[in-house]
Amino acid sequence: MFSVCVRDHVMIAHSFRGEVFGPAQRLHGATYVVDAEFRRPALDADGLVVDIGLAGQALRAVLEPLAYRNLDDLPEFAGANTTTEYLAGVIWQRLAEAIRAGRLGPAADGIARLRVALQESHLAWAAYEADLPRQA
Amino acid sequence: MFSVCVRDHVMIAHSFRGEVFGPAQRLHGATYVVDAEFRRPALDADGLVVDIGLAGQALRAVLEPLAYRNLDDLPEFAGANTTTEYLAGVIWQRLAEAIRAGRLGPAADGIARLRVALQESHLAWAAYEADLPRQA
Amino acid sequence: MFSVCVRDHVMIAHSFRGEVFGPAQRLHGATYVVDAEFRRPALDADGLVVDIGLAGQALRAVLEPLAYRNLDDLPEFAGANTTTEYLAGVIWQRLAEAIRAGRLGPAADGIARLRVALQESHLAWAAYEADLPRQA
Amino acid sequence: MFSVCVRDHVMIAHSFRGEVFGPAQRLHGATYVVDAEFRRPALDADGLVVDIGLAGQALRAVLEPLAYRNLDDLPEFAGANTTTEYLAGVIWQRLAEAIRAGRLGPAADGIARLRVALQESHLAWAAYEADLPRQA
Amino acid sequence: MFSVCVRDHVMIAHSFRGEVFGPAQRLHGATYVVDAEFRRPALDADGLVVDIGLAGQALRAVLEPLAYRNLDDLPEFAGANTTTEYLAGVIWQRLAEAIRAGRLGPAADGIARLRVALQESHLAWAAYEADLPRQA
Amino acid sequence: MFSVCVRDHVMIAHSFRGEVFGPAQRLHGATYVVDAEFRRPALDADGLVVDIGLAGQALRAVLEPLAYRNLDDLPEFAGANTTTEYLAGVIWQRLAEAIRAGRLGPAADGIARLRVALQESHLAWAAYEADLPRQA
Repeated sequence: MFSVCVRDHVMIAHSFRGEVFGPAQRLHGATYVVDAEFRRPALDADGLVVDIGLAGQALRAVLEPLAYRNLDDLPEFAGANTTTEYLAGVIWQRLAEAIRAGRLGPAADGIARLRVALQESHLAWAAYEADLPRQA
Repeated sequence: MFSVCVRDHVMIAHSFRGEVFGPAQRLHGATYVVDAEFRRPALDADGLVVDIGLAGQALRAVLEPLAYRNLDDLPEFAGANTTTEYLAGVIWQRLAEAIRAGRLGPAADGIARLRVALQESHLAWAAYEADLPRQA
Repeated sequence: MFSVCVRDHVMIAHSFRGEVFGPAQRLHGATYVVDAEFRRPALDADGLVVDIGLAGQALRAVLEPLAYRNLDDLPEFAGANTTTEYLAGVIWQRLAEAIRAGRLGPAADGIARLRVALQESHLAWAAYEADLPRQA
Repeated sequence: MFSVCVRDHVMIAHSFRGEVFGPAQRLHGATYVVDAEFRRPALDADGLVVDIGLAGQALRAVLEPLAYRNLDDLPEFAGANTTTEYLAGVIWQRLAEAIRAGRLGPAADGIARLRVALQESHLAWAAYEADLPRQA
Repeated sequence: MFSVCVRDHVMIAHSFRGEVFGPAQRLHGATYVVDAEFRRPALDADGLVVDIGLAGQALRAVLEPLAYRNLDDLPEFAGANTTTEYLAGVIWQRLAEAIRAGRLGPAADGIARLRVALQESHLAWAAYEADLPRQA
Repeated sequence: MFSVCVRDHVMIAHSFRGEVFGPAQRLHGATYVVDAEFRRPALDADGLVVDIGLAGQALRAVLEPLAYRNLDDLPEFAGANTTTEYLAGVIWQRLAEAIRAGRLGPAADGIARLRVALQESHLAWAAYEADLPRQA
C-alpha cells in the first residue's frame, strides 16, 4: 500500500459538556495540526497516490469553515462534543466527499483508504481512519 | 477506526547480553518517549475514545515503577534483554491490564486495540501493537 | 552561559480587535506549547541552572489561571490583544515574579536571563526574552 | 506485532514529466528523511525485531547510490517519475532484497512486514508498506 | 526583546565546487525548511511584532524565485557556492529589503533584528542573523 | 552572524547526589540528542561556516568516550553531578579543544562562538554557549 500525507492546521474555540471533561467544560480553544493521509494499492499513471496540490487545496477547503470559529456556534455540531477524535471523523467525512465529488482529480478514484489525524498538543493526538466506500 | 494517543517519558539504565549488542552490553541508559495509542471502532456517549485524563494517569502509573531505575535490578526482567521493542511489549501488557481492571473508566471497555511506541532517539523507535482480548 | 528549558502547554480561547487580524477577530482559540528557558553564567553547587522540578511547577502554576479559559473574560487582559507575543511577555513577567518570590528555590537567584517561547502551530511561534532585574 | 524503525536521509535532484507537476517539472531537488520500519509477530532470541546496527547499515547501503545524485541521470529510473511515493516503493524493494540476501543477519528472516516512509518537508510525506514474501 | 517566527519551505537543485564538498560536488538537491524570525524591543499598537499574514507572504515572495529551480542556473549565484549558510544570508538580505520597502506594513519599521534559519535535514541546519540597518 | 549546527546523540547511565534530585539520585540513564552550533561573522572562501563533515566527525569523537557508559565510573566526572547542563559544558570544552587542535580544518579558526545543546526528553533540554577564546 502506498501513502501520501499532507499537513495543514486550524485554530478554533469550543467547550465540552459532561463531567468527564473537567475544566475543558469551559469555553477554551485549540490549534489542531491536521494530517490527511491518502492510501492506494498502486500508483497512478503519473507515479502518484494523489495530486498533492489538489489534496492540499481540498484539505484547506475542508478546514476553512472551521477556521477561527467557535464550534459551539456551528449548527452542524449542535448536541455533539467536538472532541479531537470527533473532529477527525468530521474532517474524514468531508475529505471523503471531496474525493467522491472529483475535487482531487479523476485519478483520485483509485484512493482506497483515508486517515485523518489531529495533533492537539505535543502530548496528545487523535485520528480516524477507514476504507473509502467503493464508487459505483 | 478512531484513535487517541497520549505521550509521556521515562529515563532508565540497563545493559544487554549478547554479542549482537556490541558496546550496548555495557551499563548505559536511555530516555524513552512513550506514546500510548488507544483505538476503537466507535466513540462513546461523550464523543471520546477514552477519558484522556485517566489514560494519561494510567500511562504514568505504568511508567512509574521503571522511572529512574536500573532495569538490570528489577526481578521481573531477570534473564531478559530490556530492548526498546521488549519494553514496548511490557508497557502494552501493563496498560492492557489497567484497561481490564477498569482504571481507564467504564467506557474504556470499548477499546479494541492498543499500540505502544517508544522513541529512544531522533533516529530510532520501537513499538508493540495488538488487539485487546475480548472481555467476558 | 548555561541554559535549562522546560516545556508545558495551555489551551485557550480569545479574539482580537483590529483589521490587521482579519478572520482572527472572531472568537477562536489556540494550543500554546510553552518553553521556559532559564539562563545563568555559572552552575550552582549541585551542578544545576535551576531545580527542574520547581521550574516545571512554577511554569504550571503560571499557566493554570489561563488554562481552558476565554482570555477575553479575564480582567487583566481588558483592552489588550492577547497575541502570542503579548502572552509570551505576560508569562515571562509571571515567571520572573515566581523567581523573585523564591518559588524556584534559593539557588535560583543566580538566574540572569529568562526566555519564554510559545509555539502556536507547526508554522509559527513567538517569544519574549530579557535579563532579570538584579535583586537588592 | 512488534516494530523497530531506523531513520536516515538522502539529498537528490530530479524533475518530473506531466502537467500535474506544475513548476516541479523543472529540475529541482529534495531532502528525503527516510524511515525504515521492520515488523514481526515475535521477538528473536535476543529480544530483538532486527539487529539495529545492521538495519541502519542496510538502509545506508540502499540510500548510497541515490545520495547526491540527479535521479534523471540514473538508467534504472528512465521513463519514471521519481515521486516521493515511487521512491518509497523503490527503497522498500531494495531493503526487502537486503533482508532476503541475509544482510540484516540470520534472525531477520522472521521479519514479516516492511514500511518505508519519506518525509519531503514539514508538510508532506509518502510511504510504501507491504508484507515481505515468504522465503522457501 | 519580542520575537515572531514564521515557517515555509523551498525545494531546489544545486552543486558545489571545491574538494571540501566531496560527493556534494555532484548535482543534487535539498528541501530547506525556512524559519524567518523578526525581533523588536516593544510591540506595536496592535500588540504585534509584525503582521504575521504579511510576514508569511513576504517570506513566500522571497522563496518563490528559488522554488523548483536549479540554483546553478541563476545568474545571481554565479561563482558562489549556494551552501545552506550562504542561502540563509541571501534570504535574510531579501527579507530585509522587503521590510525596508514597506511590504510588511508600516508598523514593521520597528523591527530591529532578523534571523533566517534553514533546516536541510533532521541532522543539520544553518542560519544568518543580524540587526537591521536603521532607517533614515 | 552565520551559524551551522550538526546533530548526534549519546546514551548513558548515571546517578546524582543531593536531595534536590529526588528519585534521580538512583542509578538511571538518558538519551541526549546533542546539537553543536558553530558561529562566525563571515563565511570562509568556500562559502562555509565549517566543513560539516569534519564538524560531524569531531562531535562524534567527543561523544564516543561517553557512549554506552555509566558516567559514575569515569574518573573525569568524580565528585560532579553530570547534569544535562554540566554535560553541555563538558562537550563544549571538548569541541572547543578539537577546533583549537585543528580537527575541524584550517578554516575553522574563523569560528567565533560555539553552542552545545542537549535534549534529554520531549520536555526538557539544556545548553552551554560562549565565545571561543581568540587564538594567538
